[in-house]
Amino acid sequence: MQFDTIAAISTPMGEGAIAIVRLSGDEAINISDRIFRSPSGKKLADEQSHTIHYGHLVDPSTGSVVEEVMVSIMKAPKTFTREDVVEVNCHGGVVAVNRVLNLVLKEGARLAEPGEFSKRAFLNGRIDLSQAEAVMDLIRAKTDRAMNVALNQMEGKLSRLIGELRQALLETLAQVEVNIDYPEYDDVEEVTIPLMIEKGTWVKEEIEKLLRTSSQGKILREGLSTVIIGRPNVGKSSLLNSLVQENKAIVTEIAGTTRDIIEEYVNVRGVPLRLVDTAGIRETEDIVERIGVERSRQVLKEADLILLVLNSSEELSEEDIRLFEATSGMDMIVVINKTDLPQKIDMQQVNDLAGKGTIVTTSILKEEGVDELEEAIAKLFFEGTLEAGDLTYVSNARHIALLHKAHKTIQDAIGAAEANVPVDMIQIDLTRTWELLGEIVGDTVQDSLINQLFAQFCLGK
Amino acid sequence: MQFDTIAAISTPMGEGAIAIVRLSGDEAINISDRIFRSPSGKKLADEQSHTIHYGHLVDPSTGSVVEEVMVSIMKAPKTFTREDVVEVNCHGGVVAVNRVLNLVLKEGARLAEPGEFSKRAFLNGRIDLSQAEAVMDLIRAKTDRAMNVALNQMEGKLSRLIGELRQALLETLAQVEVNIDYPEYDDVEEVTIPLMIEKGTWVKEEIEKLLRTSSQGKILREGLSTVIIGRPNVGKSSLLNSLVQENKAIVTEIAGTTRDIIEEYVNVRGVPLRLVDTAGIRETEDIVERIGVERSRQVLKEADLILLVLNSSEELSEEDIRLFEATSGMDMIVVINKTDLPQKIDMQQVNDLAGKGTIVTTSILKEEGVDELEEAIAKLFFEGTLEAGDLTYVSNARHIALLHKAHKTIQDAIGAAEANVPVDMIQIDLTRTWELLGEIVGDTVQDSLINQLFAQFCLGK
Repeated sequence: MQFDTIAAISTPMGEGAIAIVRLSGDEAINISDRIFRSPSGKKLADEQSHTIHYGHLVDPSTGSVVEEVMVSIMKAPKTFTREDVVEVNCHGGVVAVNRVLNLVLKEGARLAEPGEFSKRAFLNGRIDLSQAEAVMDLIRAKTDRAMNVALNQMEGKLSRLIGELRQALLETLAQVEVNIDYPEYDDVEEVTIPLMIEKGTWVKEEIEKLLRTSSQGKILREGLSTVIIGRPNVGKSSLLNSLVQENKAIVTEIAGTTRDIIEEYVNVRGVPLRLVDTAGIRETEDIVERIGVERSRQVLKEADLILLVLNSSEELSEEDIRLFEATSGMDMIVVINKTDLPQKIDMQQVNDLAGKGTIVTTSILKEEGVDELEEAIAKLFFEGTLEAGDLTYVSNARHIALLHKAHKTIQDAIGAAEANVPVDMIQIDLTRTWELLGEIVGDTVQDSLINQLFAQFCLGK
Repeated sequence: MQFDTIAAISTPMGEGAIAIVRLSGDEAINISDRIFRSPSGKKLADEQSHTIHYGHLVDPSTGSVVEEVMVSIMKAPKTFTREDVVEVNCHGGVVAVNRVLNLVLKEGARLAEPGEFSKRAFLNGRIDLSQAEAVMDLIRAKTDRAMNVALNQMEGKLSRLIGELRQALLETLAQVEVNIDYPEYDDVEEVTIPLMIEKGTWVKEEIEKLLRTSSQGKILREGLSTVIIGRPNVGKSSLLNSLVQENKAIVTEIAGTTRDIIEEYVNVRGVPLRLVDTAGIRETEDIVERIGVERSRQVLKEADLILLVLNSSEELSEEDIRLFEATSGMDMIVVINKTDLPQKIDMQQVNDLAGKGTIVTTSILKEEGVDELEEAIAKLFFEGTLEAGDLTYVSNARHIALLHKAHKTIQDAIGAAEANVPVDMIQIDLTRTWELLGEIVGDTVQDSLINQLFAQFCLGK
């Protein structure tokens, strides 16, 4: 396809040694040549692809030097977008990089929309939609595991699996057509129905396998929304601080141009705990007091994990029991803290109240038991499953929703086949399954959705 | 010189399309080759300098893929550090870039200290100290003008001027030595003294020229610390908002790894107003109330510019007059606001109180007069002087201090020469001047100072 030439700042904003302004499109090299002065006087257009050139950017309208730069040229088609790409490496200051960007815009480039480089990579057929989405997942990954999942998806693992399922569906549909067109070969129903059931069942089972990875995949991608609750003075803040301090690999997202939220992630043995903003957690005193209030219940309801903290040196109170009631049925770890003091809590009662919830005893004051707590968190969500790095994970909510829909339609197809519903009705369900899976890789997806998806990308990608 | 191989993240931290991990040193390419897998299987060591290569980073200890990358190789000596340099462009996520950094560290690179790449560029003789300092000034520049000053300095304009002055001093000293060694040629004093006075005066005048640019240079580099004061409800907040809104080119520094302050700069016609943290400005109500309190006076004392806001529709109050008293002798612009209301203020009295201070009338409500205010600010600090882009500015506090010292010693030398002090005493002052100027370019500077200077750089530069 033919597009205009776009440009954007591709490094995070802020002070740093290096910033990059990236251009993509037919005019990328010409625009650069109009503003680039190499000491040797050579033109970028005459240079080999994938080479780097030192020089200065000069504003042609004033003749004044704008920046000292290194310019990388990469010629189509072996580039990120499959178009000519120029990357201008300049000094990493806010004024410097904006100045470079403004100059290339003045010389004819258009400011890229968020995600527009990736969109071109998709529209020009270099990557499919799920791979493009994986690029953003990779950038936003909070842990190594999350990044591995994104990397696998970006390299096309999910795409290939989806491709196989769609291919199987397509072959089945083709076979059905053949059988219908040439009924003289055999009894259509007798041959076609078992084939549809067999292939359909295989597709269904593969979708189920994928969906089994989805809850973990989603946690890896989005973090485990975690709320620490408990009565005042049981040690909630100490627990929070202890988790934050022991896990150095904290990722703090700095508010970008499109988002205003600052979130804090703690990486607990590969599980990204999303501490639902520290202020919120410190408000848990309120949650205890207003446990009947709707908003408090809402906070709890949206959490993936509850850490319910109890005081070992006191008997269970009415409040403790109400907290157990409010969190019943949720993924919960009971933390019995202050084991350094004489025990007064009735462990049998805690066991009964906790039900299937894990119980961990700690003395955060004496730095005891926090390892066990982290182990329990990791075990609760990733018991033995994630170390096998080869598994294909589904982590994206859009993909998960499509897989659920596809699972429904393939189940309908199998059920219909088993109930001897007319073949053309079953064909509709199979075709719909093929389409739904196609939406994951962007094969059967609408323009408006594509635009919406890429708009969520960061600038310069 | 021979150093070990260092590595650091060279782009700002945060989410972005691209991040760079930079390596410099003899082992940079070997380390990269141990972890880089190109689709063609080629080795980076065999590639040409200044070329870019697509591939994957693989952890040799596990065989697993760590990232998809573009690797730029630049071989010594035509590089930033004059050593072999490798730049690994990876995805701009926090996990991704840290993972790449950790891998190169595991393979034998050492984590670079802040500024260590620039320090090597300096120690390897590619740039002098004032040029290295200009790199950081350029990155931290808040306005175009500040960036131009830094760019000029980085390109060596200041260095060349300092070099000329030092050369003149050296030649004079040499001439004096010749005259002393061969007194038979002529009467030493008679020839030597006028020469020292002549050359010394030229050096002194050049230093004075430079120092005349320093107050503007310093403002460009560090911003103009600005405080808006006035009684409650005269329109301080509206004025602040108006300045912020009209000047889109606001630069907000995001707190880096070493600094926790968020500062806001407003670019008013090339003058960077540093709004001494917005909270502080909104505290000016307190300043009015506690005008006698030491802390309030301190805030005012540290400001470069006071905007004193008065209410045109009211008579001057006791408080207004106390504000004039508290700010007397400072650079001040009096803003008479609310001109949309009937005037009650006594302009003659304001004129008397303002002294040499500029007076501007505004109706911020009706968006009148803000242009005039901005004009007044620009005029106050840059009256006609800065448009000549060729001027060499001194903006760095260290340089300014050294120039002041050098001015003192060269003045001493001239004074001594005129007073017919023995020649060897004058020689001491001339030599000292030569040394002080040398400290600016890093020629006669101590290791401890060099370490301290580069430690203030950002990581990865």
